[in-house]
Amino acid sequence: MDPLDIVGNLHKIKPVFQPILSAINHGVIGHEVLARYKQDDTWLSLGSFFHDPDVPEEFKVEVDQQVLQLAIEEMLANNSDGMLFINRNAKQLMVNNGEDLMQLLLQYEEKGFHLNRIVIEVTEHDFDEDFESLSHLLLYYKTFGIQIAVDHVGAKSSNIDRIRQLEPHILKIDTSIIRTQNGDVFQDIMYSLSMLAHRIGAALLFENIEDDFQLYFAWKHGSRYYQGFYLAHPSFQPVDHTSLSMKISEKISGYIQREKNLLEQRHNFVKKWEQKVRSVLSKWEGPKKADIFIQSITEQFHEESFRMFVCHIDGQQVSSNFRKKTDTWELEPHKRGSNWAFRPYFLENVMQMKALNTGLLSGLYSDIETKEMVRTFSFPLTDQHFLFIDLRYAYLYDHECLLA
Amino acid sequence: MDPLDIVGNLHKIKPVFQPILSAINHGVIGHEVLARYKQDDTWLSLGSFFHDPDVPEEFKVEVDQQVLQLAIEEMLANNSDGMLFINRNAKQLMVNNGEDLMQLLLQYEEKGFHLNRIVIEVTEHDFDEDFESLSHLLLYYKTFGIQIAVDHVGAKSSNIDRIRQLEPHILKIDTSIIRTQNGDVFQDIMYSLSMLAHRIGAALLFENIEDDFQLYFAWKHGSRYYQGFYLAHPSFQPVDHTSLSMKISEKISGYIQREKNLLEQRHNFVKKWEQKVRSVLSKWEGPKKADIFIQSITEQFHEESFRMFVCHIDGQQVSSNFRKKTDTWELEPHKRGSNWAFRPYFLENVMQMKALNTGLLSGLYSDIETKEMVRTFSFPLTDQHFLFIDLRYAYLYDHECLLA
Repeated sequence: MDPLDIVGNLHKIKPVFQPILSAINHGVIGHEVLARYKQDDTWLSLGSFFHDPDVPEEFKVEVDQQVLQLAIEEMLANNSDGMLFINRNAKQLMVNNGEDLMQLLLQYEEKGFHLNRIVIEVTEHDFDEDFESLSHLLLYYKTFGIQIAVDHVGAKSSNIDRIRQLEPHILKIDTSIIRTQNGDVFQDIMYSLSMLAHRIGAALLFENIEDDFQLYFAWKHGSRYYQGFYLAHPSFQPVDHTSLSMKISEKISGYIQREKNLLEQRHNFVKKWEQKVRSVLSKWEGPKKADIFIQSITEQFHEESFRMFVCHIDGQQVSSNFRKKTDTWELEPHKRGSNWAFRPYFLENVMQMKALNTGLLSGLYSDIETKEMVRTFSFPLTDQHFLFIDLRYAYLYDHECLLA
Repeated sequence: MDPLDIVGNLHKIKPVFQPILSAINHGVIGHEVLARYKQDDTWLSLGSFFHDPDVPEEFKVEVDQQVLQLAIEEMLANNSDGMLFINRNAKQLMVNNGEDLMQLLLQYEEKGFHLNRIVIEVTEHDFDEDFESLSHLLLYYKTFGIQIAVDHVGAKSSNIDRIRQLEPHILKIDTSIIRTQNGDVFQDIMYSLSMLAHRIGAALLFENIEDDFQLYFAWKHGSRYYQGFYLAHPSFQPVDHTSLSMKISEKISGYIQREKNLLEQRHNFVKKWEQKVRSVLSKWEGPKKADIFIQSITEQFHEESFRMFVCHIDGQQVSSNFRKKTDTWELEPHKRGSNWAFRPYFLENVMQMKALNTGLLSGLYSDIETKEMVRTFSFPLTDQHFLFIDLRYAYLYDHECLLA
């Protein structure tokens, strides 16, 4: 399509609305608006027009303004509530200092379309050259109650300090990278992003969800909002959840039961391991004989563990490292005296074990020495000494509930 | 200094060694090597030479090779063990496909300096143009046992997916950004980086540590290694910990006691809150009367909390939101029916409360609605229903142990 044809035929352009669903109330909380252009009798996407760097930004602004105007009028006419997500690339926003968009929105606010229903989606990566200007413009929009979403997070836009600086309301994750990326890589990235979002108070929105697995993945990683063909296709009118064929409530109920089940199974493992340690607890004769104690328990964790040691509550390792070599356990006495209190959660965890007198299973993390994913089961031998049992990746891998 | 003078007078160049200390054994685990140039009777830093983009990369390679050679010979002559950290910018590494460096290192391996003692520090941000080539080259170096550190993380190089792709052994954090950045911002970034590092098995190294507060900050954020003038200045010979005036063991012991103290105080808060809820537990008459129950307890948490609600173990909110307005608590009945099971740790936490029948205090996070930092205290009313008490930031702020 010739960009001139498009700009010269604004009457052939219509907005379509793609529903966005909420994990909280399972309803449609808003729509992303996209543009369609009528050629002959077909409505075509204008994606290529907007992504073409040779199309002048002013053209894009003109088309976007037209689409936004039609979209808001449609929503006002339909009494349709909820949010309106609009896409703006960074360069486009900066045309005329972003005032065109602001003026249009203020005009509609007078007609009853509140600014806090607008979410502007931007890609920070677009803006390598002049990130500070983008940041200031978005701050200006925010003062009107407009929300900001950072788009394509996890693919290009995963810069921790930039995301922190923008303080967006929403991080949009492109679910299709689950398909293109190696699974472990994406899991690590998602874990980090979900911790970042939690910490800075940004909601996650997974888009391009195309099947049940992806919806489950999004839910499991803390996604508050969902979007994609699996949930609903774009249509010429905004919708509510009653018109969706996809029953997201049932899906999410299923995920909750599945997750509870996994947690229950994991809890049973912890109980079993606690029992094993309790059964030999009488053999603990103080830190100086810590190696002898571990010797008495290696057999019990031969299948599960590859490394064991005992620490004092202040972090100091009081035993050798016991490291499994195929069938035997080798001692690394030089590890005695190491201090592990600097590690994230170490002191918090030993204090909790001391208080509750129960064992504790860590989350998944990568062992610095072996670079393999591990979990650590720990147990209070006394209120001053704690046994650490590092679990083999191959063992975790064989039990879904330990990997989840 | 004229770059030509420098390259023409390689005999005036000497390496200096800056010690890097370990949180684990409190000893010197290695040194970063830096270059000094003798002008008249003063030894000058070559920082400006290396950072000048107009100096040809070939010049920098030549000087770096000379410095590295002298450094390794010094270490071999002194029988000094430990790691050797070397800086290479990305462009420089790519000269001649990085083979100059590799050949030099292999030459010294034959003389007994093992490749696994070398850590190459790179800045991923330098390499926007050709990140894939850098990534491949580093992978090649790794196959020889050479370690990789990503430098300047937290400032420029905080791209989650790039760091994940490089799988570095070490993330180097420039501590000086504590001074230039807003505190909250830096805390959020550090939290995210430390979670990322934990997950991918990278060790944190805080550099440019200049005072006690910065050392404490580094330790508290899980830093395994430390470097900076506060610990030791660079010197012409590699050193061991016996020659350092700074007693890092004593410092770290102090941090551990301080941290344990804070955790103890925090634990006492939790105990106190548990007691308050237990004292009214008899008023719980099931989910249908959840609002009446909360009404009976708002007074008790008037100072601490700004929001309270009750959820079923499956995530469903069975009460209104109670929200404090100055002196009264307002009800938001429309929140009943919300499902919070998608939130990170929700199901894990309720299952744990059910199993142990104790309350639980969450970590610090940003509330999505208020954007303020909060913690949530939760308590099992029965094995199916849980009370959530969101704590006000101002209250946390008044109690250091709740902020830490």
